[in-house]
Amino acid sequence: MDKIKVVLFGFGTIGTGVAKILFNHADRITQATGKTVELIKICDKDITTRRDIELPSGVLCSDAESIFGDPEITIGIELMGGLEPARTFVLRLLENGKDVVTANKALIAQHGNELFNTAQKFNRTIAFEAAVCGGIPILSALSTALQANTLQSINAIVNGTSNYILSQMESGKTSYRDAVSQAQKLGYAEANPAMDVDGTDAVQKLAILAQLGFGANVSWKNIPRLGIESIESIDFRYAKELGYRIKLLAVAERSSGGLELHVSPTLVKGDNPLARVRDAFNAVRVVGDSVGSVFFQGLGAGQLPTASAIVGDVIDTILGRTAITFRTLHLWDSAKTSVAIKSPNEFFGKSYLRFSVQDQPGVMHEISGVLGNRGISIASMIQHEPENKTTEPAVLILTTHEAREGDLLEAIIQLQQLPAVLGKVVRLRVQN
Amino acid sequence: MDKIKVVLFGFGTIGTGVAKILFNHADRITQATGKTVELIKICDKDITTRRDIELPSGVLCSDAESIFGDPEITIGIELMGGLEPARTFVLRLLENGKDVVTANKALIAQHGNELFNTAQKFNRTIAFEAAVCGGIPILSALSTALQANTLQSINAIVNGTSNYILSQMESGKTSYRDAVSQAQKLGYAEANPAMDVDGTDAVQKLAILAQLGFGANVSWKNIPRLGIESIESIDFRYAKELGYRIKLLAVAERSSGGLELHVSPTLVKGDNPLARVRDAFNAVRVVGDSVGSVFFQGLGAGQLPTASAIVGDVIDTILGRTAITFRTLHLWDSAKTSVAIKSPNEFFGKSYLRFSVQDQPGVMHEISGVLGNRGISIASMIQHEPENKTTEPAVLILTTHEAREGDLLEAIIQLQQLPAVLGKVVRLRVQN
Repeated sequence: MDKIKVVLFGFGTIGTGVAKILFNHADRITQATGKTVELIKICDKDITTRRDIELPSGVLCSDAESIFGDPEITIGIELMGGLEPARTFVLRLLENGKDVVTANKALIAQHGNELFNTAQKFNRTIAFEAAVCGGIPILSALSTALQANTLQSINAIVNGTSNYILSQMESGKTSYRDAVSQAQKLGYAEANPAMDVDGTDAVQKLAILAQLGFGANVSWKNIPRLGIESIESIDFRYAKELGYRIKLLAVAERSSGGLELHVSPTLVKGDNPLARVRDAFNAVRVVGDSVGSVFFQGLGAGQLPTASAIVGDVIDTILGRTAITFRTLHLWDSAKTSVAIKSPNEFFGKSYLRFSVQDQPGVMHEISGVLGNRGISIASMIQHEPENKTTEPAVLILTTHEAREGDLLEAIIQLQQLPAVLGKVVRLRVQN
Repeated sequence: MDKIKVVLFGFGTIGTGVAKILFNHADRITQATGKTVELIKICDKDITTRRDIELPSGVLCSDAESIFGDPEITIGIELMGGLEPARTFVLRLLENGKDVVTANKALIAQHGNELFNTAQKFNRTIAFEAAVCGGIPILSALSTALQANTLQSINAIVNGTSNYILSQMESGKTSYRDAVSQAQKLGYAEANPAMDVDGTDAVQKLAILAQLGFGANVSWKNIPRLGIESIESIDFRYAKELGYRIKLLAVAERSSGGLELHVSPTLVKGDNPLARVRDAFNAVRVVGDSVGSVFFQGLGAGQLPTASAIVGDVIDTILGRTAITFRTLHLWDSAKTSVAIKSPNEFFGKSYLRFSVQDQPGVMHEISGVLGNRGISIASMIQHEPENKTTEPAVLILTTHEAREGDLLEAIIQLQQLPAVLGKVVRLRVQN
């Protein structure tokens, strides 16, 4: 029986999960591929910390250089995370004739074109199902089964950490700060959770979804993002009054004028399946012109769900399915962009705005004047009396009808300059 | 550019949808495959009824015989439904060197082994994503992306008609009979909806899911099924009191002793995503040992959702992805069965039982005696006073703790023989 020799870079949580499946369930890969897979090297700069798996001696190593040139290795799995040395390692693997499987969304979002080009040049493949939504086979669905569709939209919860934090806050008993600590304790959030809560992780994943779903070639840095840091318990209360829940949504939506791409905390109607995605789950709702709405939900992170996607990609790579899909997707070819990206100022949508205001006559008149001057009309309003009128400002919540993003952003700047408006205006989107 | 010539058998609702995509959106298939697809013949015994698509002259024909031998045709799409002549046509296509794409779950469930064998013999492929859950790419997920897992269970709503009927009844204002009429008016149910409501359609789809997900080689006729015909409004009311909704679930679950397979109306906990699948939607919840729970929801029937899956399969067939998947699945090889099928009598599970009883002393004592004698313990009980004591019997609802199926079925027979129990005992499953 053919032996496929595989090497793994990065022996952290996910790497340990992949090693568990490859060592403990080798029969599955054999059954799926008709070949035996041997994980011959696991390379990490830290080879002393104990992981919860026993490795055959000689597998663990810290010298990556000795691996790239080994002609027996045909597949390299990159699970180091981050941009460097991951980028260099992936390039070295491809240049040395090895196919690559990676879970590194930052790498794909930042250096995808370069890596895909290199893979194409050396007639190799890159598979990255695990980079977006862990165990949910969403990239596979977009790249294969849904190809008969022109997509209308992708709405997705792609960051489990922030979804966990929002779920905790929604339960009503947890502040943002406490929810972040809990997420850290449970291992969902890093010591520095900035990239999760500020939307960076989500825009990187959205850029990948938009490329596979719409042929959009867009830098993740150009996708507007809002994080969840400014959300307070009060927002969940008001959202509920209005019939919504709050989710950090990554959105790609085709409209006249091109594709709208954004990540922001969003009020989602209670009957939308995305509204019910709780804790660290991820979910994706795809709308295609033939298939209608298809909804996927699963664990977007974690050792074994992510390893499931990685090993699935290893199987596809061995069988040659990855080669077919990679060849037909033309990801290296930025000229193949099939959709115009809409300028953020030209987006149209509804918003939720929260103000702290001085409780004095005429405030509402001033605020509605600023909005009205830009053609932004108010859909609903809730004013909240402070518990202690002398020490706390009043809170005012507005939702708007559909408005042009550029007008809204200008209005917010002007609103923040009104003497009666205290501090920053918190703005969430409202799903149409 | 290479031309791929395709023929379609069956110009009904789905066939028209496939023709729409292939004629009106040929560019998509070209973009996905690098080849042009020409639908050169559509074969149907009825070539006079107008469909809502204009065809080039000469495409529509009623003489299937002239097509099988045409060496230019490389793919045949079978959308006739039913067993014959669909089986014969598919065999003729394969024997003549054509790959087959079909949406025919009855055909695959009944004659799958024969057809897969023939395909293997002639080095051809059969793709059938559309046969289960229409537009949801569930067969693709089971056959490719989730291959790194040993599955624990599949719980699925695979029949849109019965789910629509149950949703209407649950809303509280519709009887079973009226809900069936509505489903027929909306085109969800056939003039004779027997196969939808009695669970036949669902066991056929379950047999296919179990083969792809568990390697189970089982005849659909050997899978125990209960339909939805005996459900009444009262069951939804009591289910709700107990915190459940009622869904027609197709279940494959690994347990000690083998795989449990059954289709039955089931009380599903309100917080399970399957409980919230409404109207004609389908959904599948897959639990794998690595990936955890993955949930898929989408339109399981209808012209364009099903056509989306068909054309997706055509693309996969052209690209050679189907050939790889088909070759590795070994579906023709019944010796590859990787799981024992558990005898229905040995299933273990909870049940919901509804009795009409004479409102007299001692009835509960008798019933609990019959159950207790077989080791079946009662988890909850609701007794419902009839509105009119003189004309209506009392209604008694029991739920049981986990019990052996064989014991339960014997108990039900004995219960129905008690003089105080009037008519049939209605039995639903309760999800663990």
